[in-house]
Amino acid sequence: MPTQEAPALQVDTQYFTLAQPEHPFGLENGGQLENGSLAYETYGELNESGDNAVLICHGFTADAHAAGELVSEQNRRGWWDSMIGPRKAFDTNRYFVISSNSLGGCKGSIGPASIDPKTNKPYGSSFPEITIGDMVRAQYKLIESLGVRSLACVTGASMGGQQTLEWILSYPNFVKGAIPIACTARLSAQGLAMGEISRQAILNDPNFNGGDYYDKQIPAKGLAIARMAAHLTYISSPYLDAHYGRQRSGANLFAVQKMLQEEGAGFIKRFDANSFLTLSNAIEKFDIADETGSLTGVFGSVACKILLIAFSTDFLFPPNEMQEIYDALISENIDAAFETIDTIDGHDAFLTDWKKLSEIVSRFLHEIPLRQ
Amino acid sequence: MPTQEAPALQVDTQYFTLAQPEHPFGLENGGQLENGSLAYETYGELNESGDNAVLICHGFTADAHAAGELVSEQNRRGWWDSMIGPRKAFDTNRYFVISSNSLGGCKGSIGPASIDPKTNKPYGSSFPEITIGDMVRAQYKLIESLGVRSLACVTGASMGGQQTLEWILSYPNFVKGAIPIACTARLSAQGLAMGEISRQAILNDPNFNGGDYYDKQIPAKGLAIARMAAHLTYISSPYLDAHYGRQRSGANLFAVQKMLQEEGAGFIKRFDANSFLTLSNAIEKFDIADETGSLTGVFGSVACKILLIAFSTDFLFPPNEMQEIYDALISENIDAAFETIDTIDGHDAFLTDWKKLSEIVSRFLHEIPLRQ
Repeated sequence: MPTQEAPALQVDTQYFTLAQPEHPFGLENGGQLENGSLAYETYGELNESGDNAVLICHGFTADAHAAGELVSEQNRRGWWDSMIGPRKAFDTNRYFVISSNSLGGCKGSIGPASIDPKTNKPYGSSFPEITIGDMVRAQYKLIESLGVRSLACVTGASMGGQQTLEWILSYPNFVKGAIPIACTARLSAQGLAMGEISRQAILNDPNFNGGDYYDKQIPAKGLAIARMAAHLTYISSPYLDAHYGRQRSGANLFAVQKMLQEEGAGFIKRFDANSFLTLSNAIEKFDIADETGSLTGVFGSVACKILLIAFSTDFLFPPNEMQEIYDALISENIDAAFETIDTIDGHDAFLTDWKKLSEIVSRFLHEIPLRQ
Repeated sequence: MPTQEAPALQVDTQYFTLAQPEHPFGLENGGQLENGSLAYETYGELNESGDNAVLICHGFTADAHAAGELVSEQNRRGWWDSMIGPRKAFDTNRYFVISSNSLGGCKGSIGPASIDPKTNKPYGSSFPEITIGDMVRAQYKLIESLGVRSLACVTGASMGGQQTLEWILSYPNFVKGAIPIACTARLSAQGLAMGEISRQAILNDPNFNGGDYYDKQIPAKGLAIARMAAHLTYISSPYLDAHYGRQRSGANLFAVQKMLQEEGAGFIKRFDANSFLTLSNAIEKFDIADETGSLTGVFGSVACKILLIAFSTDFLFPPNEMQEIYDALISENIDAAFETIDTIDGHDAFLTDWKKLSEIVSRFLHEIPLRQ
């Protein structure tokens, strides 16, 4: 635990060439990318045996800038700066921390807004389907290129938690520890339904134009509503009661409604509607259960230590869904632990409840030996 | 309890003249209606002492057709036909049941789509603000016109539950029993936020045109999304798991998503966007708490028996909010009972869990004596 604040890391985003015409990146559901990069950042140094790496997988709409101050953006702080840095939970004096932006996003990695080399125009509606498996395979190529020989830990919340689960299934011998946070083995029907509201809001915006809007007006209104609906799944009812209640913001608006409007208005400046759809689709279709919907036997190949973390008021990925993963792991004698953090902050507690999270994560990491 | 099915009531909707130029209907927040009717239906007969009337207040988007078969609409069944009729919970052999369509709606009562006598055009954006209090005052005028001298019971779920609470506060000596179901003394911040998603979807539809669209295209896409978001608050996560789970409906759609799309598509044929906004506004602003948000002392004037009913998985009006009403009633020595029905059906359980509801309601009604 940090006893005094260390100076912030000064960081820059870097780019890894994922695909080139002579080395395309094949996709799980068909097609390939013939060009394209992944944006990433690293914090700390890789040790000689290459076994002190920690991979951070971000949630739905975040970016590679997880820690420190981003020099190119007026020292903007990373979204998990509370967790990553010298003497923090992911201690950069000990670990080589890699944070990779997601394939299909719009934060420096190849996505629907990128230029399709075949047409010299943005992909738009022609961007291929991306899966969580594709995202993880791209991350594997990135960290392999950095000289990492095994991951001391892979972690992430929300979509990052899905990636973490995919990691332990796809690369069981490459990972020593995994911390899936606030995620699920497969999105519930309610989650799928909520996603549909966002999707319809984007698809029905007259500016969406089937996804080909880059030379025109963006579907701003639809995207704002999509974000409002999504944002509401990240925060809990008790949180909203505590922070907004029934406070007014003018005669015909409540403060909580104004907050949502502002959330939507801010989001359209920082996120692309096609990426919203591409990543939502990956999140919705991710499903590691067998054909009967059961997790029994699914984790047979898993060889690492696992720490599952849920938040008591997480509405989108409730603790009982993580409990199901835990039960399946335990039934296969995998070294797993499960913690539910009691909080009113809902799904977004992975960003706000960093003190409790730090304690649990630090304890877990110290049980994973490094060679050097 | 019914032991055998009685023949369905054959019913017709009737209309009560609420306002005329010489007798306008004044509104709580200013303005008045100079013309306009309330649609209503009645089932059973009023007794001589005029004390066997039961008033049914419907939820947000329902109508006056609560029971029996509506002759004018191919014998369409009423939305609470399971609860109202001969030997049913609201036994029409014993009670004179009145079901009134809400002021501000679009199901036969005056609302934004009605003709404004001043312009001979639909009110649209100029329709005045309506409150739950206005709705209840209009209902009072209706039932007074029918010769009712006191209500044996007033009941309703959701917005109808808010009306029921308003009734016991506004007309304490007119009501002998009240059954507020699945409602709240004031909508939570989460409820307000959910409402904002629906509202933004309507307001941002290019066809909405500030509310003046009656001679043009209706804001169908926005209204469909508004309904999708609202509908999702009426059903619970376990209900969706049980009925839809992760079943697919084609390669890129889950069955639960298709259900929501169909829900939206059906809704735009039966409901007006301006009424959606007018009624939502009334629901959101309804608040019987004092300035500090407390219910203590609020029910001091209440003189009737009260039965509160909540549903265990109601996401919009959770049992703990009804518990708060119950606690406030009990602290003032009011004859109140509180039942939470265990169900996976969420808020809409007031429509589906009618067997459990019937049992509780019948028991309650038999404790309210009639003079004749």
